[in-house]
Amino acid sequence: MKYLIVGGVAGGATTAARLRRIDEQAEIIMFERGEYISYANCGLPYYIGGTISERENLFVQTPESFGKRFNMEVRTQHEVVAIDRAAKAVKVKKVATGEEYTETYDKLVLSPGAEPVKPPLPGINSEGIYTLRNVPDTDVIKAYIEEHDVQHATVVGAGFIGLEMAENLHDLGVRVTIVEMAEQVMTPLDYSMATLVHQHLKTQNVEFYLNTAVSSFSKKDGERLNVHLNTTRTIETDLVILSIGVRPESKLAKEAGLEIGDTHGIVVNEYLQTSDPDIYALGDAIEYENPIIGKKMITYLAGPANKQGRIVANNLVRGNEHVYKGAINTAIAKVFKLTVASTGVSGKLLGEHNIPHIDSITHSSSHAGYYPGAEPMSIKISFDPKDGRLLGAQIVGYKGVDKRIDLFAEAVRNRYTVYDLTEIEHAYAPPYSSAKDPVNIAGFVAENILNGTTRTIWWRDLVAGKADDYFVVDVRTKDEAELGGIEGSLNIPLDDIRERLTEIPRDKKVVLYCGVGLRAHVGCRILMQHGYEQVYNLSGGLKTYEHAIQ
Amino acid sequence: MKYLIVGGVAGGATTAARLRRIDEQAEIIMFERGEYISYANCGLPYYIGGTISERENLFVQTPESFGKRFNMEVRTQHEVVAIDRAAKAVKVKKVATGEEYTETYDKLVLSPGAEPVKPPLPGINSEGIYTLRNVPDTDVIKAYIEEHDVQHATVVGAGFIGLEMAENLHDLGVRVTIVEMAEQVMTPLDYSMATLVHQHLKTQNVEFYLNTAVSSFSKKDGERLNVHLNTTRTIETDLVILSIGVRPESKLAKEAGLEIGDTHGIVVNEYLQTSDPDIYALGDAIEYENPIIGKKMITYLAGPANKQGRIVANNLVRGNEHVYKGAINTAIAKVFKLTVASTGVSGKLLGEHNIPHIDSITHSSSHAGYYPGAEPMSIKISFDPKDGRLLGAQIVGYKGVDKRIDLFAEAVRNRYTVYDLTEIEHAYAPPYSSAKDPVNIAGFVAENILNGTTRTIWWRDLVAGKADDYFVVDVRTKDEAELGGIEGSLNIPLDDIRERLTEIPRDKKVVLYCGVGLRAHVGCRILMQHGYEQVYNLSGGLKTYEHAIQ
Ligand SMILES: Cc1cc2nc3c(=O)[nH]c(=O)nc-3n(C[C@H](O)[C@H](O)[C@H](O)COP(=O)(O)OP(=O)(O)OC[C@H]3O[C@@H](n4cnc5c(N)ncnc54)[C@H](O)[C@@H]3O)c2cc1C
Ligand SMILES: Cc1cc2nc3c(=O)[nH]c(=O)nc-3n(C[C@H](O)[C@H](O)[C@H](O)COP(=O)(O)OP(=O)(O)OC[C@H]3O[C@@H](n4cnc5c(N)ncnc54)[C@H](O)[C@@H]3O)c2cc1C
Ligand SMILES: CC(C)(COP(=O)(O)OP(=O)(O)OC[C@H]1O[C@@H](n2cnc3c(N)ncnc32)[C@H](O)[C@@H]1OP(=O)(O)O)[C@@H](O)C(=O)NCCC(=O)NCCS
Ligand SMILES: CC(C)(COP(=O)(O)OP(=O)(O)OC[C@H]1O[C@@H](n2cnc3c(N)ncnc32)[C@H](O)[C@@H]1OP(=O)(O)O)[C@@H](O)C(=O)NCCC(=O)NCCS
Repeated sequence: MKYLIVGGVAGGATTAARLRRIDEQAEIIMFERGEYISYANCGLPYYIGGTISERENLFVQTPESFGKRFNMEVRTQHEVVAIDRAAKAVKVKKVATGEEYTETYDKLVLSPGAEPVKPPLPGINSEGIYTLRNVPDTDVIKAYIEEHDVQHATVVGAGFIGLEMAENLHDLGVRVTIVEMAEQVMTPLDYSMATLVHQHLKTQNVEFYLNTAVSSFSKKDGERLNVHLNTTRTIETDLVILSIGVRPESKLAKEAGLEIGDTHGIVVNEYLQTSDPDIYALGDAIEYENPIIGKKMITYLAGPANKQGRIVANNLVRGNEHVYKGAINTAIAKVFKLTVASTGVSGKLLGEHNIPHIDSITHSSSHAGYYPGAEPMSIKISFDPKDGRLLGAQIVGYKGVDKRIDLFAEAVRNRYTVYDLTEIEHAYAPPYSSAKDPVNIAGFVAENILNGTTRTIWWRDLVAGKADDYFVVDVRTKDEAELGGIEGSLNIPLDDIRERLTEIPRDKKVVLYCGVGLRAHVGCRILMQHGYEQVYNLSGGLKTYEHAIQ
Repeated sequence: MKYLIVGGVAGGATTAARLRRIDEQAEIIMFERGEYISYANCGLPYYIGGTISERENLFVQTPESFGKRFNMEVRTQHEVVAIDRAAKAVKVKKVATGEEYTETYDKLVLSPGAEPVKPPLPGINSEGIYTLRNVPDTDVIKAYIEEHDVQHATVVGAGFIGLEMAENLHDLGVRVTIVEMAEQVMTPLDYSMATLVHQHLKTQNVEFYLNTAVSSFSKKDGERLNVHLNTTRTIETDLVILSIGVRPESKLAKEAGLEIGDTHGIVVNEYLQTSDPDIYALGDAIEYENPIIGKKMITYLAGPANKQGRIVANNLVRGNEHVYKGAINTAIAKVFKLTVASTGVSGKLLGEHNIPHIDSITHSSSHAGYYPGAEPMSIKISFDPKDGRLLGAQIVGYKGVDKRIDLFAEAVRNRYTVYDLTEIEHAYAPPYSSAKDPVNIAGFVAENILNGTTRTIWWRDLVAGKADDYFVVDVRTKDEAELGGIEGSLNIPLDDIRERLTEIPRDKKVVLYCGVGLRAHVGCRILMQHGYEQVYNLSGGLKTYEHAIQ
């Protein structure tokens, strides 16, 4: 059996290694257009920023070591430029010489990845404007910073990679401005969660413009780069990182007549087989049905690419035995001191797909408050109003965000309901958690909403004049209330509420709020059982409200 | 409706709070024998050690604040001494005066907890010998340390609490000796994992005696305490912490004629209702069927007690609607710089119950090795040889142990197989994980064992003369091998193995090992596919072997 693999990094190298482990006799050739294989794409921003100090740490394997260990040919700087499916052969171009040759295959694997989007804006090819995908890109950016007096950088696009780059440039002492077309950073988050990130960026002295697009770039010899915004503002800068998104490298597949989807990703079946049964594809270049919304999507993540690699190898050698179940886009990023993570589908995206859902926000601590070093985290979950099935979760916080997002991811993947969240049995000792873990609390609160034990409203319901529809009660202590709260609200501390019921009208919608929602929950239950018929808890309390409206 | 609750801490206070939230009209009285309610039992060792500096931080609620917020009577220093089930009344003794009175109930809840075992050893009541359960115990120990010149302490029993106390006393500058009857610390761990803890204790200069029991204590006035061991050794010490276990406080229930199990725990049904339908019980005092081995066990953990509290309240108010599914004993402890965690059932306990299982050890990093600060973790899982169902997991490491144990706990609870572990979709960015998470790796390795892709042997198979049955090959590099390995093994670096097959006999059982098992896996696959019929990977590699045999 002769296997050819296109792409030598996350998907390609993993497929190749597993292939060899389960088929010692096969002939395997791995083609990589670039000079390097098996490198840590995800580490590139940190190498630029100096957190990863040794360049060689970026390489898990070299072409030589990999070829030797797995007894295969690794042809770097060989680009596969065409596939002749009828002849079962590929045309390969040697990058250095331009020389071309063909190589036949029994089975072909495509893991060509994705390329950064570079819009055709005037001036986009000026010196000092870069995208970041691979090691050469990294080397160029790092050299540019070392060789020029980079005082200020502009990051265009505030996705995960853009923010990682902002942080790493900041770490180098460079002032950073972020320009983002959307009303928020990090589009997998809902607005109310993204505002926590906005707040943090401010504390880090990172300038950012939302709802703002770049219209052109210009640079005169010897002068600084100008980034012209659609707001008429111009930013003078020394370096631009373009991180406005990526798109699948599906051109080769398309030209070979393989089926390509609306997303421009390569279409594969549940065995990761393309429309040609002798060709498998994986990684950033394929589209796959999202298990929650049922729509084909592309997952630009290394974890899924690695897992798919193993599945492709299994299916190639053992016959199509291993079904790929799809990814739910579980992602995480360090954004300066924050950790930001999401899994499943955001409220926003559910809305766009007209999928009914209820959202709920809770704020918890990374571990028991009485043990030193606990840090706050905010959790938003979205669930199905019929059966409580969890559809997505987002967390912004510090320590311990990573572990809760992994639990939520399992919950989403396994079609847990919010009732199931209440039963998650976490490991508890004071340095690690609380007797009720934040995921349990998120479950309790959602369960209460779902079975009518409580009703919630959303910060949006209270803004822009709508507040008049509600009688708003602040159930925090007098001292807390004096430091400020929602305008026009009446302060009745929770512990006094039973004695002060007469101050709360029975013919109006009553909203209770406290810092995060816990005391208001207790208050809501008291009012509801004293005959109040329209009582609401403000989801996420004052904390969410204040971040969202600023 | 009139509810009486016995016990005002984890189970009792949680039940009471939820009861009030869902039944504003009920009469609720909570009895607590001690002076305090709602305190952080789990924080007590850390308050003694000074990590928690403020005593008031131990209290989540005071009797006054709790009573006011939840509009109930909190009677501290009132001990319930008898239950008259026919009359539906309890007899209560005021601790301060000895005065007794009765109080009737519609429904009674028992959450009396567990008491430390204090064996009737000679001298056990000498001054300076303490157990730790509650705030007064804590105050006594702390005062003793402040008022005496405690240079050395002896911790008897090396369970989670014993080791936490060892750490905290050590933090105070006290030299600590641990005495443990078993061959290892922390019995929920298997021996091979406990040895990692032993190793760590040595690096922390904590002395410990295994396989050793205390036979008596003695103390002459003005002299130090003597702890006499069954090995004829005597330890001179200034303070003894007895932490050899706890037992359920089921005396009250037993005397009332409620059904008590073989474990001495109170018997409850799936609604947490005792053999008397008007009496519910929860927490450390009940026994419940372990979902994995089907045997009744007691779970001495705060997370389950808290969750049960909410279930009991739901069932009391809403009728028996909420089924308790049992706990799988997911636990974690900080042991000096280590984090030690377990969930489900250990290999040892599975063995004792004659439950067939396969064990597998893997060693991973807390996050991508190329990003600074990655720390090692060792994982042991046990699974069913028939269908691969995960039965238990243990982890010893540093950062990131807590999040992996939570994932394994979900896997055990939800009857995942090891195949399912390979599909867990974790959040990956370099500071948090690797593209293949340690739980995925544990799954890959187990899957390979289960479906015959590889065979493993255990460190025990290689010790005590048995090594002669095997031809042992060290596949690490020459440099690594020169630093020492398994005696009598032949070094053939993995990358040379294909060329040196002739050196490996075909008529013997061949064992391959490397540092942790990864390279040996690749090597095993090469040999197996070159016609070798009996090839084994040493589970956990040299790392597990070396720790286990020392
Ligand atoms: C800066 C950066 C940070 C990231 N951070 C994270 C993160 O924190 N977490 C996360 O999960 N993911 C992260 N990712 C995404 C992750 O790296 C990708 O999802 C993953 O690498 C995809 O694997 P792949 O095999 O599909 O593509 P790649 O790993 O990109 O490999 C594709 C390879 O194919 C080669 N190739 C393409 N066409 C041809 C051809 N015709 N002939 C020969 N070779 C060809 C390319 O040169 C490339 O080397 C990050 C990506 C980048 C760029
Ligand atoms: C030092 C220590 C550290 C711990 N660390 C952890 C940890 O890290 N993680 C973890 O999960 N668990 C830990 N635990 C265990 C956890 O605290 C218990 O599992 C949990 O508190 C059990 O709840 P409970 O309601 O059953 O009992 P408790 O919380 O102990 O409450 C029982 C209460 O009932 C009272 N009572 C008993 N009988 C009567 C009566 N007849 N009348 C009136 N009152 C009565 C007692 O005085 C006691 O206050 C620790 C325990 C201790 C002691
Ligand atoms: C590393 C790389 C070359 C592929 O290697 P790989 O051999 O599949 O992956 P690993 O080194 O993690 O090894 C995993 C294998 O070792 C086995 N293994 C791991 N630890 C083991 C242990 N302790 N004992 C036995 N086997 C073990 C696993 O079972 C698995 O083998 P299998 O697939 O046959 O079941 C490829 O993943 C790569 O190039 N990665 C870097 C690029 C990348 O992923 N970039 C994006 C992220 S930054
Ligand atoms: C704290 C204690 C008194 C019980 O209190 P509790 O009110 O049940 O628990 P919490 O304070 O965590 O609050 C949980 C409740 O608030 C709700 N809640 C929490 N955060 C919320 C938010 N942001 N919005 C709305 N509701 C919220 C939850 O839904 C839950 O209410 P429910 O049970 O009606 O669904 C009791 O657990 C206790 O005494 N604990 C200390 C003792 C102990 O556990 N020791 C062992 C561990 S060290």
